[in-house]
Amino acid sequence: MKLLEEHIKNRGTVLPGNVLKVDSFLNHQIDPILMQAVGKEFADRFRNLGITKIVTIESSGIAPAVFAGLELGVPVVFARKKKSLTLTENLYTSSVYSFTKQETNDISVSKNFLGKGDKILLIDDFLANGQAILGLLEVAEQAEAEVVGIGIVIEKSFQQGRVLLEKTGYPIYSLARITSLENEQIRFVEGE
Amino acid sequence: MKLLEEHIKNRGTVLPGNVLKVDSFLNHQIDPILMQAVGKEFADRFRNLGITKIVTIESSGIAPAVFAGLELGVPVVFARKKKSLTLTENLYTSSVYSFTKQETNDISVSKNFLGKGDKILLIDDFLANGQAILGLLEVAEQAEAEVVGIGIVIEKSFQQGRVLLEKTGYPIYSLARITSLENEQIRFVEGE
Repeated sequence: MKLLEEHIKNRGTVLPGNVLKVDSFLNHQIDPILMQAVGKEFADRFRNLGITKIVTIESSGIAPAVFAGLELGVPVVFARKKKSLTLTENLYTSSVYSFTKQETNDISVSKNFLGKGDKILLIDDFLANGQAILGLLEVAEQAEAEVVGIGIVIEKSFQQGRVLLEKTGYPIYSLARITSLENEQIRFVEGE
Repeated sequence: MKLLEEHIKNRGTVLPGNVLKVDSFLNHQIDPILMQAVGKEFADRFRNLGITKIVTIESSGIAPAVFAGLELGVPVVFARKKKSLTLTENLYTSSVYSFTKQETNDISVSKNFLGKGDKILLIDDFLANGQAILGLLEVAEQAEAEVVGIGIVIEKSFQQGRVLLEKTGYPIYSLARITSLENEQIRFVEGE
């Protein structure tokens, strides 16, 4: 998605350790006009597949997910993140390890909002090591919901997440695929 | 806002202790069509005031805030919540006590995204004891940003937040004002 790549190039910053900061339009400050375009792009890619719900993770997944949800006319459920859950009654849960923060969070979704018969699109802001999406896939499995596809705003294609997710066989649609952040240069996968 | 009141009546549930659960369209599952209407309502109320940014708190404030931001054509900044912050460099911070969860969280906003000259609209999902909005007001003060107004999706008018905020003198616009949850009946402030 050209528009998104331009925002990443113009407004993103690269920090040591292959960290891409896009706090200015996605992760802390949100650009609603861009997020609307992002949501539409997801919706166009996964339209007419009978999607009943979008599932994402708080907090940075919410903005792109709600715009996709509006476009597709379906509700959005965001998984909650907590250090560790004590009460898990009526919840689907999964443990997600963050390599960036070096901590494990439990994510959870209420059984009230996801179940058998749901056809879901998973959306997240970043795909790096793939742990968050794997957690959502586990939640979907517990709910016996059918995963129709995975939508990622920014993929760091040089990390293991993409390969891990491809093994699951679900269609993955990443709007921007970054092939390298070396020498503080942002390089995108070409020819997409 | 009639549409919102209907959703609260039809889809909300009252739990013991004057707790209103609106997990089915606002706090866990999000109804994007309703959130778009909510965002438009905020935008209409606070249009033409020169607002430069909307500031909210993760996670449930994000959906109404991004739709208001889209309507007003301004970015949204969401304050991050953390148990306690160790690194506060380059951050505006404030401590917020939650009566519901009986815990204190530090909220923070990067100095990169808020400053002198900003005219901001604060948006939050709930107004009960007012602590979250008071925290955002403190952040705004640190940033020397001008607060133009406060937009609340659901106000529990029988708790102290409304009175506390009125003392600050900022215009408050609550889309649904609940006057009582007694006997598991949801009653709204009449004649609005």
